[in-house]
Formats: sequence, structure tokens, C-alpha cells
Amino acid sequence: MSTQESLKQSLDHDLQTCLQTVDSLLPEMVLNRRHFHRHPELSHQEVETPNRIAAYYRELGLEVRTGVGGRGVVAKFNAPQASKTIAFRADFDALPIQDEKTVSYRSTVPGVSHACGHDGHTAALMGLAKSLVANQDKIRHNVVLIHQFGEELYPGGAMAMIEDGCLDGVDAIFGCHLQSMMPAGTMYYREGFIQAAVDTFKITIIGKGGHGAVPHEAVDPIVIAAHVVTALQSIVSRNTDPLKQLVVSVGSIHAGEANNVLPGEAGMTGTIRSYEPEIRASARERLSRIASQVAEAFGARAEVELESGYDALYNHPSETTLVKNAMLAVFGEELVRETPPVMPGEDFAYYTQKIPGAFFFSGAQPEGEAYPHHHAKFDFDEKAMANTAKTFMAILFQDDAE
Amino acid sequence: MSTQESLKQSLDHDLQTCLQTVDSLLPEMVLNRRHFHRHPELSHQEVETPNRIAAYYRELGLEVRTGVGGRGVVAKFNAPQASKTIAFRADFDALPIQDEKTVSYRSTVPGVSHACGHDGHTAALMGLAKSLVANQDKIRHNVVLIHQFGEELYPGGAMAMIEDGCLDGVDAIFGCHLQSMMPAGTMYYREGFIQAAVDTFKITIIGKGGHGAVPHEAVDPIVIAAHVVTALQSIVSRNTDPLKQLVVSVGSIHAGEANNVLPGEAGMTGTIRSYEPEIRASARERLSRIASQVAEAFGARAEVELESGYDALYNHPSETTLVKNAMLAVFGEELVRETPPVMPGEDFAYYTQKIPGAFFFSGAQPEGEAYPHHHAKFDFDEKAMANTAKTFMAILFQDDAE
Amino acid sequence: MSTQESLKQSLDHDLQTCLQTVDSLLPEMVLNRRHFHRHPELSHQEVETPNRIAAYYRELGLEVRTGVGGRGVVAKFNAPQASKTIAFRADFDALPIQDEKTVSYRSTVPGVSHACGHDGHTAALMGLAKSLVANQDKIRHNVVLIHQFGEELYPGGAMAMIEDGCLDGVDAIFGCHLQSMMPAGTMYYREGFIQAAVDTFKITIIGKGGHGAVPHEAVDPIVIAAHVVTALQSIVSRNTDPLKQLVVSVGSIHAGEANNVLPGEAGMTGTIRSYEPEIRASARERLSRIASQVAEAFGARAEVELESGYDALYNHPSETTLVKNAMLAVFGEELVRETPPVMPGEDFAYYTQKIPGAFFFSGAQPEGEAYPHHHAKFDFDEKAMANTAKTFMAILFQDDAE
Amino acid sequence: MSTQESLKQSLDHDLQTCLQTVDSLLPEMVLNRRHFHRHPELSHQEVETPNRIAAYYRELGLEVRTGVGGRGVVAKFNAPQASKTIAFRADFDALPIQDEKTVSYRSTVPGVSHACGHDGHTAALMGLAKSLVANQDKIRHNVVLIHQFGEELYPGGAMAMIEDGCLDGVDAIFGCHLQSMMPAGTMYYREGFIQAAVDTFKITIIGKGGHGAVPHEAVDPIVIAAHVVTALQSIVSRNTDPLKQLVVSVGSIHAGEANNVLPGEAGMTGTIRSYEPEIRASARERLSRIASQVAEAFGARAEVELESGYDALYNHPSETTLVKNAMLAVFGEELVRETPPVMPGEDFAYYTQKIPGAFFFSGAQPEGEAYPHHHAKFDFDEKAMANTAKTFMAILFQDDAE
Repeated sequence: MSTQESLKQSLDHDLQTCLQTVDSLLPEMVLNRRHFHRHPELSHQEVETPNRIAAYYRELGLEVRTGVGGRGVVAKFNAPQASKTIAFRADFDALPIQDEKTVSYRSTVPGVSHACGHDGHTAALMGLAKSLVANQDKIRHNVVLIHQFGEELYPGGAMAMIEDGCLDGVDAIFGCHLQSMMPAGTMYYREGFIQAAVDTFKITIIGKGGHGAVPHEAVDPIVIAAHVVTALQSIVSRNTDPLKQLVVSVGSIHAGEANNVLPGEAGMTGTIRSYEPEIRASARERLSRIASQVAEAFGARAEVELESGYDALYNHPSETTLVKNAMLAVFGEELVRETPPVMPGEDFAYYTQKIPGAFFFSGAQPEGEAYPHHHAKFDFDEKAMANTAKTFMAILFQDDAE
Repeated sequence: MSTQESLKQSLDHDLQTCLQTVDSLLPEMVLNRRHFHRHPELSHQEVETPNRIAAYYRELGLEVRTGVGGRGVVAKFNAPQASKTIAFRADFDALPIQDEKTVSYRSTVPGVSHACGHDGHTAALMGLAKSLVANQDKIRHNVVLIHQFGEELYPGGAMAMIEDGCLDGVDAIFGCHLQSMMPAGTMYYREGFIQAAVDTFKITIIGKGGHGAVPHEAVDPIVIAAHVVTALQSIVSRNTDPLKQLVVSVGSIHAGEANNVLPGEAGMTGTIRSYEPEIRASARERLSRIASQVAEAFGARAEVELESGYDALYNHPSETTLVKNAMLAVFGEELVRETPPVMPGEDFAYYTQKIPGAFFFSGAQPEGEAYPHHHAKFDFDEKAMANTAKTFMAILFQDDAE
Repeated sequence: MSTQESLKQSLDHDLQTCLQTVDSLLPEMVLNRRHFHRHPELSHQEVETPNRIAAYYRELGLEVRTGVGGRGVVAKFNAPQASKTIAFRADFDALPIQDEKTVSYRSTVPGVSHACGHDGHTAALMGLAKSLVANQDKIRHNVVLIHQFGEELYPGGAMAMIEDGCLDGVDAIFGCHLQSMMPAGTMYYREGFIQAAVDTFKITIIGKGGHGAVPHEAVDPIVIAAHVVTALQSIVSRNTDPLKQLVVSVGSIHAGEANNVLPGEAGMTGTIRSYEPEIRASARERLSRIASQVAEAFGARAEVELESGYDALYNHPSETTLVKNAMLAVFGEELVRETPPVMPGEDFAYYTQKIPGAFFFSGAQPEGEAYPHHHAKFDFDEKAMANTAKTFMAILFQDDAE
Repeated sequence: MSTQESLKQSLDHDLQTCLQTVDSLLPEMVLNRRHFHRHPELSHQEVETPNRIAAYYRELGLEVRTGVGGRGVVAKFNAPQASKTIAFRADFDALPIQDEKTVSYRSTVPGVSHACGHDGHTAALMGLAKSLVANQDKIRHNVVLIHQFGEELYPGGAMAMIEDGCLDGVDAIFGCHLQSMMPAGTMYYREGFIQAAVDTFKITIIGKGGHGAVPHEAVDPIVIAAHVVTALQSIVSRNTDPLKQLVVSVGSIHAGEANNVLPGEAGMTGTIRSYEPEIRASARERLSRIASQVAEAFGARAEVELESGYDALYNHPSETTLVKNAMLAVFGEELVRETPPVMPGEDFAYYTQKIPGAFFFSGAQPEGEAYPHHHAKFDFDEKAMANTAKTFMAILFQDDAE
């Protein structure tokens, strides 16, 4: 047996031990998750959640920094003979959605609930940390545990935490989102863009109201809005590389109250979904220009408000390979899949703009009826927390991570 | 002096006498009008109003027929040596509008008021009738006094009254509308079309809702509605004789609630204003066809509802000349004007489809602030009632009427 | 019999005499017309035609001024006891159209012909002049005979001749156009606008060519042109008083040669037809603005060329009544009709901008097949020349002309 | 040294020997290519070209089948201990383009030339065959040499040759296209779709001509065509999965000749580029529907002609890896690149629909000015033929090919 081969066997053995630790901690993860679930805190208003996380890490004997970027918590596990520093990130904020579940651990805060699974992310990362400590001699990398606030509400917590140094000295970062609509136990990776950049827009066509019978005395904003909507189609059909991705959708249009009165204004709202920054920038510019100049062509004026969402989330090729290999090592080929890009924004995007990294999904469809994220009855299969933590753990044991 | 000239002088003299009678009756007209104003009755629900009108005519000793076409009243003045029979029409229904005036004669019926001046039309016609009786030897024509119900609410009362014989034996008909936004004392005539045919439409584009990020899974009704609106412009710009008149206006458009969700439907309402029946029919057909087939072109469906208003009101040339000459005889050139066509519908249209006739306007702008018809504070200068009655009277004295 | 009546009878008698003179001169008109027909001269290049006209008037003993406004001829007939001065105008230029008729009097000039009937106008006016001289004691007005050059080619000859004084001292002006597609012997009048203002436009959308498979590298002028065409519809449908007239038509569109190559430019040409100056000005402005700003909305540029035609031709009410009465006096009710406005431009428009006047049509459909004006086989019924001259003559005998 | 390693070294050595043979045959390839270049034959009319190819293979002692699928030639090289059968394909038809080069080997056939490089493909494959024979003991796979006719003209020769058995017993197939606009010596691979499916369309809007001044008497095909063009944009913007690729381009539009005459018809041509069959089918269906129903919405009719090009060409992942590895082995990392998909169709698509395979590009930009394929002055760097043949050869030496 070559040295290389014996090293590999030893590593495999260590990983198996560590994974068992993770599994054994699932009940604790469940308790932690349910505590957070009962006590959700809105984005950028989190107080007790980060306190509890910090206390947990202090008890584990890890270095803890609180108030990172505002409300974030960063803990550090130092490996004896570390070659690299790997970060894992979990977000911990909740949503302004009334919990309509009837479970024992339902939210106790009216109008607020963990309807997106961030409680699970948090508990999984805490479980990982305890597993690291329990197996500290087997871990070859330093690990930075990033608990992030405010992911649900732009501008998120990632940018502030990065600015406050959470990535300092970190070589690569990984994160995971539970997915209530993907089969529990199945793990999903994707190289390149995995989540879109989301922009929202509001266009107001300001014409001049009047009686429908004398249109020449008015500047009809409905006809203008119609021309804007048809012209917007060209952004995708004509101005975008057919090999690239872009969506421009007008989701609402409202103008006027009576059949015989031309209103003074017409309002539209919509969304732009893109991956690549140039496509995004071009779409935003084209949209503004079309709205403004088509309105002017008709003697009206357009007000365009563009609200930026998070950038598209890019998974680096090497780190994605690491994730995939880690998944394969833990779950086997049957349970590991490539995911198509998904649409909602995710401010994990900003971590991988700074350093290499990858984001992945952990299938968490519960038994019985599954509800999508942000639904009032959203819940997930709690075993998915262990799967997340085990993937994190396995990432630390991949050769290429060195 | 020729025979002809002496006849003319005699006629002029008689007319002056009759006009003085009308003027002397203005106080009674005001009393009558204010009674009706206090006790308005909604279209097609009139009971006391026609009763009171009928009683008045009976007291004058005229033939009266009630319940004409449902709720109409028709009285007849017979001239000793009549050469012709001339009809005058006044409508008497009120509107579902809360009277917000503070005058002594404000409506006593909650939510109902004479906000269009039909009370004035009625009182003026009653005043004319008493003047005819008072000068019966001077009047050379039989006069039919048509008091019509239900003008404000399609299908109106005109068609039913015509069917019930109110025009039988009538040679020509005339009617008048007070106009609160036109200067009091000024009189308005117009040959040809004086009021437009009004149709209203509602178009619903039935697509398929979906998430704004995956438009190919939806059938986007907003884009389709936009194409329908732009295509509708061609009805006027391409399908209508440039020498004829047509307006097609979309007054409202509503679809969607969120920027990132494509709604399942988009709704529009609008109005079609036309004069000539072929133009009207063609516009209605074109609108339906464009909405339906553009929707189908995009894989959606359109529901089109077209609600008909009254036909356009056509003033016959000779009768308009009569009206104009009558106005000139009474008011002089300074106070007589040609009016451009106006837009709201008027079921007087159906009378002049049957027999020659003309409709005119009596300027009735009150002192102080003037409010448009159908406004909660609508009122008018009551002297305009006498002007209306005097024009009617003078029509009976025009040569060409013989 | 009153004085008035006996005057009328005397006038009627004189008119009949004068009309007979006109009729007797038809053979001469035919000879003159055919001479001009054989020797047509292009607009603004006329030499022999005005010379011949001037010689004719000199022979008649009339005052003649040549070179008026360049190439015009103005002759004057002075009535002994003139109360007014009335002008009649005939244009004398020909068209760059090859005569394809086979008649004896076909054009001898290759590529040039009198395909619009101006030869007939000229001969008719000359015939009128000789009739005036022959009946000079019966004519109560001075008559100015205006022979105009260059009508077919903007800026025409009317403006220059007016500037050169051809209307000085003239009280009213009348003109006539033969109409090969209207029944011979029928006469047409119209109050108000009788011929439209004609503008032509050329729009070039300058995008950027490219391969059809990579549209984002191009700026697709075809899609932009399509948006311009749909937007142009709003000028008529939204920006024009529904009671006024306007046509904006795109008559040609051309772009691209291959199915898979996006061209760099798209070109359109079209026409604007209007009557009232504000409508015309607004349409021109709206068209330029729509083309320019829609193009810019799509990142392209539009070049708009607007070529002005003559203003719309307005017939004054009193002068139109004169024309109508003159026609009725000569031809009787059966042969006199109101014409709808027609579309081609006519620089007679500028005369009635200066002084009162009216233009009318003389039906001149020939036997056999009739061809429209500007057709290579255009011809007309020569008797229409006498009808034109007789109408001119009768105008001089109408009461209101005094 | 392990057995595996020694095998690898031996293979590497054999490959180097074989590549040297290929290089040594470049002069012969040039001679052959130039012969074909002088004597081009149009698609589906090839006679001498396949005869010459067949003769060459007979001389080499290989099994040859002619008339395959009509005009194709298939030769077979049998390896002593073959584990697999690998096919290489070259097309041999020329184009109806006049050769405008001045080189010694310019086409001798008027109006026909090898303006796409198929002469080079043919000569390269012949050179490969001779190299195989020369090194037959070193070759581990049977090789099928497919010389295909008619690639330039739909339906091509591939489908017929496949039907006639050219792929029978073949495990994988590879092909190459020289690229005159890509730097000589550089090699290009791509996994997945490398060439689009190309459809062309022609849409004729059949309205009704008329004068531009009376649009209501016409059915204006220009306005309708404009609405069709704007509506077509929705196929890409609304009906296509944003993660998939589609282009719909209108490349030409033509209608009308005069600014003031509405033409009776408007014609458009364009191209649809797609990869996946469902996207392609949907785009074709949507285009037809939009054209037809938008035309009907305006009271016109649309004729839609859709001409099918080849299917999109799909490169299988394993075979693409083989190609890439072969390229790396021969040319080194610096000269091997991933290509984006290119647009023109290629009937090699049908081979990889049947069996695994991959198509690649061989950069062949000549010294001096380079002209694109199908240009009258098209030429290429002849060394690219050796590069093609060397890549084919190296494919046979890749491990995974076994």
C-alpha cells in the first residue's frame, strides 16, 4: 500500500467517525432549531438569537466575536496543524409571516416566523461546531463559523459582516439552504451561477388626465404604458446574448378608474432576474431608457425606480467540485444531483465575490404536505440539518481542500 | 305693404305677445321646478312626477294620456286652424346622486337628486303649455307635449313612448337641454350630429398566472393587454374614414398585485364615441375582433363585453334652421351660437330617427360657482327655463314650420 | 313688378346672353386646349405657354402683365361701371409623364404631357375673357384673369404671383379644376376645406447591422421601425381632435436583404393629410418626436425628413355660396353637388389665405374609359371647359357678389 | 514503473509516431485538396469527387462502399485487435459561388467553388487513412471513414447515409470543420450543443391596397406587419425558458413603393435559431400563430412559410472529453479552447442523434486577409488539414475510447 493510499484510508476513517458524531447530535440540533423557531426575530432586529448562538460557542470553548457587522456572530475553531481556514455560514433571521402551523414548536411571536428555514441553518452549524470540537484531533483545517443576520432584507448582513472582517484569513467559504420542496436526503450542487440577481422596478407614466371623449386634450398614459410594455420585451429578445439568461417581467399594471376618463398616470411594477453583472447592468439601463424615452416620444414623462436585490450567487468551480465530492462521499451517487439555477436572491453572493466558495441545497421536504418557503405553513424535515452539517464536515476531508 | 309683409308683421306681433306670457310664467316654472327638485324620482321608478304633470295638464283643460310607454305623459294642445302638429319633449327622471347643495329646495330624498336639470326641462314645458292655452287663438299649430321618463338609464323612455304612439301624427319634434356650464341666456344649435353614440366596453384577457421568473410557464396577460391597447389605436387611425368621427379610449387597465408574480388576468374598460351607425358598428366589431384574436395570437383568451348606450342624436337640417331662426327672433344674433357636438348620450336620438326634429341647448350657468351635470352640487340659472320655453314658442312662429 | 324684381329679370337675361357667348366659343377653347396639349411645358420651365396666353389677351385688347412672380400672366378686363374686382385663376404647367394616348392632339414633347388638365383650365379662362369682351356692357365687375405657372411642383407659382401683386385690388378669387373621374356636366362645390394639406415624410432608422443569430451585437432597426409604425397610429387616435381630420399613412417600409442578417437601417416613407394648420403642425411635430425618441429608446437614431406640400385649400362661406348659386343658375339642381374634400394639394390655397375665394370642380369624365389625373392616358370631356367658363361668368351675375 | 504507466508510455510513443506520419502526408493532402478545389461539384450532384475518393481507398487496400445513401463513400480500416469501431466523417460538396481568388488552384468550374473548406475536410480524412494504414500495428480500433455528400443543401447527405448503414457497428463518431476566421493552429471543442438548429421563415401579410389618404378603404399591411414584428418578440421574452436558448430575428421587411399608396402586401423573412427540439417546435408554432392571428385581428391574412434547416448539433460529454484530451495531447493547453456555440447548421447533427460523438473546429485562418466561409474569396491555411487529421489520430489513442 502506497503512502498516499494509506493516508486516504486514514482520512476516510476519520471522516466516518466525525459524521457519526454529527448524526448523534441531530437531537440537539432539533432542540436548538425548535427553540429558535418558537422565538423568531425579524431581519436586522435580531437580539436573543445571536446572544444564544454566542453563548453556545462560549460554552464549547471557542473564540467568539459578536456584533460582527452589526448583529453577526463569528466563532472560530482552530485545528492543531491547520493548513487552511474554511468558513461555513448560516443565516438566522426570520420573516414577517404569521405562523399558521399547529406544531408544538410554532412561533410564539405574532406575525413573525422562521418560514424560510434559517433556524435549521443555525442549528446545523452549531451541531457542526460541537462535532468539530469533539473530534478536534482529526480536523486538519481551521474552521470559521459565520452566523449571519438579516439575510431576508436588503442590504442583508453579509456585506456588513465582510466589511467587519468575517472573511479575514479565510481561504474558502461554504453555505447551504434547506429546500422544503426538494426530496429530503437528496443533496444539490451547481457550478457557476446558482441563484439569480433580483432587481425590482416601478415605472410611473405621467401623462395628463382628461375625458375619454376628447383624447387630444389629454396625454393618455395607458396607451403609453402599453407601448412601454411591448418595447420592454426587446431587452430579452434583442439586447441579450441568446446564450445568457435574463428575465424582465411586468407583474402589475394599474391605471384609471372609469371607462370614460383618461387617468393622469399609469403605474407598473416588475422584476428583472439576471446572473451576469453586464447583463444585469444592461437590462437596468435598457429598461430605464425605454420607459423614459418611449414616454417622451408620446409627450409624457416616466419615473423609473429600480430597487436592487442581491447580486447573483456564483459558485466557484473548484469549490463546487469539493462540495460535490463531499456529497458523494457522504451520500453516494444516488442522492447527489445537479440543480438548475433557482430564482430568489441570496446574499451569500457577496462572500463568493470576495473569496472562493460554493453554496448548495439540502433537500428537506417534510412528510405530509410540503409548503414552499415563505408560506405560512412552511416546515421541513429536520434530518436535513444533519445532512447539511455532514456535507460541511466532509468538505473538510476532501483532498483538494488542502 | 304687401300681403306677405303684413302677415309677417302680424306674426311678429303675436309672437311677442306669447313670449311675454312665457316670461310672466317664470315664477310658476320656478315653483314647479323646485317642487320636482325636492321630490326627485329615479329613472323608471317615477310615480308622483308624472302624476303631478298629468294633473297640471288636466287643469289646463288639455287632453292627457298617462302611462305612455310605461310612465310617460303626453298632453295635446289643439290649435283652431292647425296646419301642422309640433311636439316638444321634456324628460323628468332624476339621478342616484346625493344632493349636496344647501339651497331651500334641495332634494328631500336621500341619495337621489335632479342633478341633470330634468326638473327644469319639465317645468319649462309646463310653462310653455300654459302660455299656449293663454294665447290659443294666436297659435297656428297643434302642439304635443311629451313628458318622458327614464332618460338617464338605458334603454331610456323614448323608445317605449314612441312605440306607444307618442309621435303619431306629429310632423316635427324639438327638445332642449339646460347646460350649467354654458353662459346663461346664450342659446346653442347644431345641424347634424349634436350628441355622440356612447358604447362602453370591458375587455378581460385571460392568460395563466405564474412566477415572474419563469414566464414560459405562464401566459402573461399584461403583455397581451399591452398589445391589445396598441392594436386598438388602429380602429381610429386606419379603419375609420378620416372625414368621420370616432373615439376609442381605454380608460382603465388593471392587472397583478406583485412585481414578481404574473397575474392570470388583465382587465380593461373603455368607451367608444361615434356618430354614424356604420362607424359605430364597425368600431364595435373591430374592437371585439382585435381583443379576441390578439389574445389568441398569444395563446390567451379575451372576454369582451360591449354595453350599448343611446344612438347618436341627429338634428335634421330644416328643423335646425327653424330652431336657429327661432333663437335669432327671440334672443338676437349675439346670444345665438353654433355648438360643437357634445359627448354624453341622449335618447332624444330616437325621436329624430322617426320624424324630423332638432335638439338644442339653453345656457344656464348659475351665478357663483358652476358645477357640471351629474355633480352633487349641480344647479342652474332658472331663467334658462323661460329661455327654453320661449324658443319652443318661437319655433311655432317660424315660416318654414308651416 | 317691383324694381328689385325687374332688375333680377334683366340680370338673368344678360347672363343667358353671356352664357351663350361662352358656349359659342367652345370650339375655340378646344383648339386652344389642344395646342397647349401638343406643346406641354414642365412646371417652372414654361415659356411658350405664357407667351401664347399673353398674345391672346393683347389681341383682345386687354391690359396684360407677363412674368408675374416669374412666369405668370395677368390680364385685366375693366367693366364700365364696376363695383368690384373679381379674379379667376387657371394654371398652365404640365407634368413629367409620357403621353400614352393615341389622339391627334397627343403631346409632341417626349416625357411631358398635360396629364392633369391644366391645358383645359387655361383654354377655359381664355374663352371666358373673350366672352367678357364680347359682352362688356353687360358685365358689372372688373375681372382679373390670372394664368399661373408651376402648380404641380412645390413651391408652386401662386405664392410668387401673390407676392408680385396679382391679387392687388381684387375682392374675391375663384378657381376650378376639371375632374376626369367625376361625371361630365356635373358641378361640385364645397364650403370650408376642399383639398388637404399634403406632407410627405421619410424616416430612416439607423441601428447597427449584424448577424440575425446574435441580435445583442446589433441594434435591430426592423424591430424599432415596427415600434415606430405602431406608435405613429397614436397621432390620429390620441392626439387629434376627433371632430377634426388627419391621416398619417406609412406607404412603404424597406429593410434588409437576407433572412439571417440584421440590416443596419430601415426606411419608411409616408404621407400626412390635414386641413387645419394646428392639426398639421402638431402631426408633423408628433411624427418627428415619435420617430426620434422611439429610436433612441432602443439605442438607435432616426432621421426624419418632412417635405411640405401646399397648405389645405379653404373655401370661404360667402364665396362658396356664390359659386353654388352660380352653378344652380346655370346647370340646375340636378347637376350641382357638394363634394367631399379631396386629397391632392392645390396651391390655390394661398389665394384664399389672402382674400376671400372659392375653388370648385367641373366634372369632365370622357366617353369611353376614364383615367385618373396623372395617368399616362388621362384625358377629359372638353365640354367641361365651357362649363367652367360658364360658372365663372355666372359668378359675376350673383347678387351677393356686389 | 507500474504496468499501467508503461502501457501509457508505449501508447504515447505510438501516437507520436502516428502523428509524424500525418505530418509527413501534409504535402499529399495539399495536392488532393487542390485537385478537389479545382474541380468542385455542387451538393447532390457529386460524381467525380466520390469516384476519386473511392479510388484512393482502393489503392490503400481498404474496403470501400460507394453510392452510400446516394453519393457517399465509406471505407473501413480494420485494426488487428480492435476493441472498438470509431468513425470519422468528412463532407465533400461545394457551393454555387463563383471563385474570385487568383490562386493557382482556383476553381475551374464557373459559378461553383469549395468556399466552405469541404475539400480540406476530404483531403485531411484521406491523409488520416493513409497514416492508419502506414501504422496499422499501432492502431487499436477499427476506423470507418465516412465521406459525405450534400452537406450544404438540405436535407443533406447524413440522413441518407445513416439510413444506408454507414453507422452500423460504429461505437462513436467524430467530425471537424475548418474555420477560416479562427487562428490557424488553435483547436476548439464544446460539450453539448455546438451548432444551432436553423429555421428560416417568410411571412406575407395580405391586406388590401389603397390610397394612403383613405386608409379605411384599405387593409394596411404595413401597420399589421409592425404589430407582428413587435408581437414576435414575445416568443423569446415570454414563451422561452430563460435558461434555454432561442433567437427569432426578422432579417428583412419590404412593402410598398410610394409614400401615398398603401400596398396590398407586406413581406418579411427571418430566422429561428434554437438548440432543443421542444424550444424549436414551440417557437415555430408560436411564430405561425402570432403571424396568422395578429393578421386576422386586423382583418388581413398571413401566409407563413417555415423552411427547416438541420437539427442542432449535440456533442456528447464523454466524446467531447475524448476530443479535448486528444487536442491537449497533440497541441498542448495553449492551443486548445472551448468554443461558444456557433450558428450555421451542420448535418453532422444526425450522426450524434444516433450514436455518441462529437464535432470540433480546427482554426485555419490563412495568412493575409481572411474571408468568412461562403465568401467568394474564402481560403484557409492548409496546415489545418494536418491538425484535423492529427486530432482524429489522437482520439484513437485516448484511454476512455476503449
